Amino acid sequence: MNIALVLYVVGHVLCMEAVLMLLPIGVAFVTGVGDWMYFVYAMIPLVIVGVLLSFRKPKVMRMRMKEGLVSVALAWIFLSAFGALPFYFSGYFNSYVDCFFETVSGFTTTGSTILSDVEGLKNGGLMFWRSFTHWVGGMGILVFVLAFLPNMDGSSVQLLRAESPGPMPGKVVPRLRETARILYLIYFGMTILNILCLVLADMPLYDSVIHAMGSAGTGGFSNRNLSVGAYHNPAAEWILGVFMMLFGVNFSLYYLLLKRDVKGFFKNAELRLYVAIMVGVTLLIAGNIVQDYCGGSWNDALRSAFFQASTIMTTTGYSSTDFNLWPVFSKMLLLLLMIVGACAGSTGGGIKVSRLLVLFKTVKQEIRHLIHPRVVSAPRMDGKIIETGVVRGILIFFFTYITIAVVSMILVSLDGFDVETNVSAVLSALGNIGPGLGTVGPMGNFGGYSAFSKLVLSFCMLAGRLELFPMLILFVPSTWRKSY
Amino acid sequence: MNIALVLYVVGHVLCMEAVLMLLPIGVAFVTGVGDWMYFVYAMIPLVIVGVLLSFRKPKVMRMRMKEGLVSVALAWIFLSAFGALPFYFSGYFNSYVDCFFETVSGFTTTGSTILSDVEGLKNGGLMFWRSFTHWVGGMGILVFVLAFLPNMDGSSVQLLRAESPGPMPGKVVPRLRETARILYLIYFGMTILNILCLVLADMPLYDSVIHAMGSAGTGGFSNRNLSVGAYHNPAAEWILGVFMMLFGVNFSLYYLLLKRDVKGFFKNAELRLYVAIMVGVTLLIAGNIVQDYCGGSWNDALRSAFFQASTIMTTTGYSSTDFNLWPVFSKMLLLLLMIVGACAGSTGGGIKVSRLLVLFKTVKQEIRHLIHPRVVSAPRMDGKIIETGVVRGILIFFFTYITIAVVSMILVSLDGFDVETNVSAVLSALGNIGPGLGTVGPMGNFGGYSAFSKLVLSFCMLAGRLELFPMLILFVPSTWRKSY
Repeated sequence: MNIALVLYVVGHVLCMEAVLMLLPIGVAFVTGVGDWMYFVYAMIPLVIVGVLLSFRKPKVMRMRMKEGLVSVALAWIFLSAFGALPFYFSGYFNSYVDCFFETVSGFTTTGSTILSDVEGLKNGGLMFWRSFTHWVGGMGILVFVLAFLPNMDGSSVQLLRAESPGPMPGKVVPRLRETARILYLIYFGMTILNILCLVLADMPLYDSVIHAMGSAGTGGFSNRNLSVGAYHNPAAEWILGVFMMLFGVNFSLYYLLLKRDVKGFFKNAELRLYVAIMVGVTLLIAGNIVQDYCGGSWNDALRSAFFQASTIMTTTGYSSTDFNLWPVFSKMLLLLLMIVGACAGSTGGGIKVSRLLVLFKTVKQEIRHLIHPRVVSAPRMDGKIIETGVVRGILIFFFTYITIAVVSMILVSLDGFDVETNVSAVLSALGNIGPGLGTVGPMGNFGGYSAFSKLVLSFCMLAGRLELFPMLILFVPSTWRKSY
Repeated sequence: MNIALVLYVVGHVLCMEAVLMLLPIGVAFVTGVGDWMYFVYAMIPLVIVGVLLSFRKPKVMRMRMKEGLVSVALAWIFLSAFGALPFYFSGYFNSYVDCFFETVSGFTTTGSTILSDVEGLKNGGLMFWRSFTHWVGGMGILVFVLAFLPNMDGSSVQLLRAESPGPMPGKVVPRLRETARILYLIYFGMTILNILCLVLADMPLYDSVIHAMGSAGTGGFSNRNLSVGAYHNPAAEWILGVFMMLFGVNFSLYYLLLKRDVKGFFKNAELRLYVAIMVGVTLLIAGNIVQDYCGGSWNDALRSAFFQASTIMTTTGYSSTDFNLWPVFSKMLLLLLMIVGACAGSTGGGIKVSRLLVLFKTVKQEIRHLIHPRVVSAPRMDGKIIETGVVRGILIFFFTYITIAVVSMILVSLDGFDVETNVSAVLSALGNIGPGLGTVGPMGNFGGYSAFSKLVLSFCMLAGRLELFPMLILFVPSTWRKSY
């Protein structure tokens, strides 16, 4: 392990975080809430540690896969540990673990909160920072560093591969830096568009920025206790529902659209399945709730069902209504969406539609092979044969995902909450969704869990965001062995 | 599809079932309960259909894999459909679907009941038949046919492969018929031993037979409403706990013992992990319940915890106490055991310890590969390299298992029971366990579910017992196409 290189990367990320903290300071001044000093306090250790770590360039700059994975994992842990400081200094949170949980929840775009009264944070710098972590975490902080900082001597590939969501990270253009920059520009443009639409739908500007950043990163932090439900604004619900869905799409596809390749966009198998699942679940839930929960109004039922399907499947986690009260059939469908997740290469979490698509195709082929053992065929996606290495990787990912989920469920069940709460809390954390069911439902919060469970759930959030393996290899002793 | 051959096999199995029904008739006479006529009524259609199907030998006797899978699936469905008739004729059940569910639950060794008052069946022929289905289903009805009926021209391999549990069906001796016979003799011997031990522990003879058959098949039907808890007999609980655990071990290992290869027995990796999990969970649960549920008595806590761990992990499903009332941590551990299941090649269900062992080794190797990409190594088990085909098959099995579970959970949730009930009911059915949690807990029953849900759960039980694929290919149109 080239630990010097890892720390060098982490140092760069921390310096970047210090720079990013200038934004909430500005917001604190503009809004007049005056919580800017907490960020100044936080920047002091941040800059010191950041500069110390990145001061000396390591002798060997070549990054291998394991340094890439460890860098990304450590960068995210440090990012959250320091990012939690402004919350801690504000004194509004009960403990440092709570602040850490909230920040991990922010950067991983989970959106689970431990606050029972979010509005007490006030609409100033802290609230902005809380949602801004979503925006930064959604696209990836290292992607950001790669896109806008001086080139880091070819270590980019390993870092990008470790950080970007999905089984097959795509380059839209041959040069990685260029790719990262294009993706960030699309991301930025869509966020601005989202803010504009919300302002036009009569949402206050500050709230629009908060909710747009939350949808962009598919995070889900709101500045209102009742989340989006607080506005009683059907237009805003439709706008956010649609934008969340858009942010759950593979961003490379938008690049296709920019190049006017509309056909390529709509032919994408993952996108089609994603939309089909979203529409199917929306209709099933709407039919399930229209009579007893919406007074027979299909308009209300479809809006609520679509908003909820979109917010859960993209793993955003806003709520317009308390789906905890819905019938069990609807709740089970939402649990299913929690596992499925959004598209690869989007800001959303979960197992990802394309992984499941590959797995289903593999099972289908396996069954076909049982019936016609002599016919040789390979599953295909988007016209290309799916390599067995990819299938194997996805199968291993799926098994690891379920294993982490089951172990975590058992660990958090020590706190004595009911099965529904534990199962959904873990699936929610691992899928970076936000709300669960039961005690941690859309109108509840994670404050009731013990510090131990909050750390377990923080681990799940990080593991979910970084696609499991970067976090897992931290626990393997041979990772840390000096190898040259 | 050579449908003539499939029907020929099914016909043989039905004739065998008619013969097996002579046993409960005998029991009905001996016990004097006098419910023998229901079996006579059932034998009439059984013999007619059985003889009609197996009367003409098909022209082509060569069995391919797909005929093997379809034969096994159809044989089990028909077996249950006809096996349900005595219950139906008795008029003690509410509907034919209930009888079918109960019989599927019997043959698949699940042990879930829809009866709220089991004792109303009386200790006669019907009660015996109900538990006898466990005994027959545990080892496999086709294995039985193969072991004791005239050889079916080489179709044996496909049938045995489709019916026996576990990823790599082992032959203990080169000839299949001989293997089947040895396994059945070990099975029979152990059942007799179990009966003897129970009788010595002061359990009535009839009850001892019932409970021994239930443990042998790892089924779990009891003739008492409170299951094993009704006897308040600590010795019987220990005996059953140990025997269930023994029946959850790969039977080929007992053959090793018979050949005095004690070293080979204890070196088996699956067995070691199986025992380790059982002991670990027993200790964790005992510690969790000793103060609040056992009044501080470690003796009681260990007995209850071991009995429950053994009954759930071997997927038997007897209960000595209502673990529904236990703390959530213990309940989550039991849910975990439901997924894990017993050893391959045993009468138990679930995913099986050896599958999980292979998957863990694969993940471990994958992580090692991330850290040292240039080191080539393959995971090993019991000294042999695990072939990639086996790993792939197991990964596909795992994914299919979880998929069937999730889809079934959503379907049964239409009945409106809570999440805990639905999740555990499906896991219990798919793993052939018996009780779940919540409404279907150890002191509850499955009678409250709708007919539709009972059929979904019946499908799960059959899919779980036959290792998924025989049941799945029934739904693929090309299975039924005439291919020569």
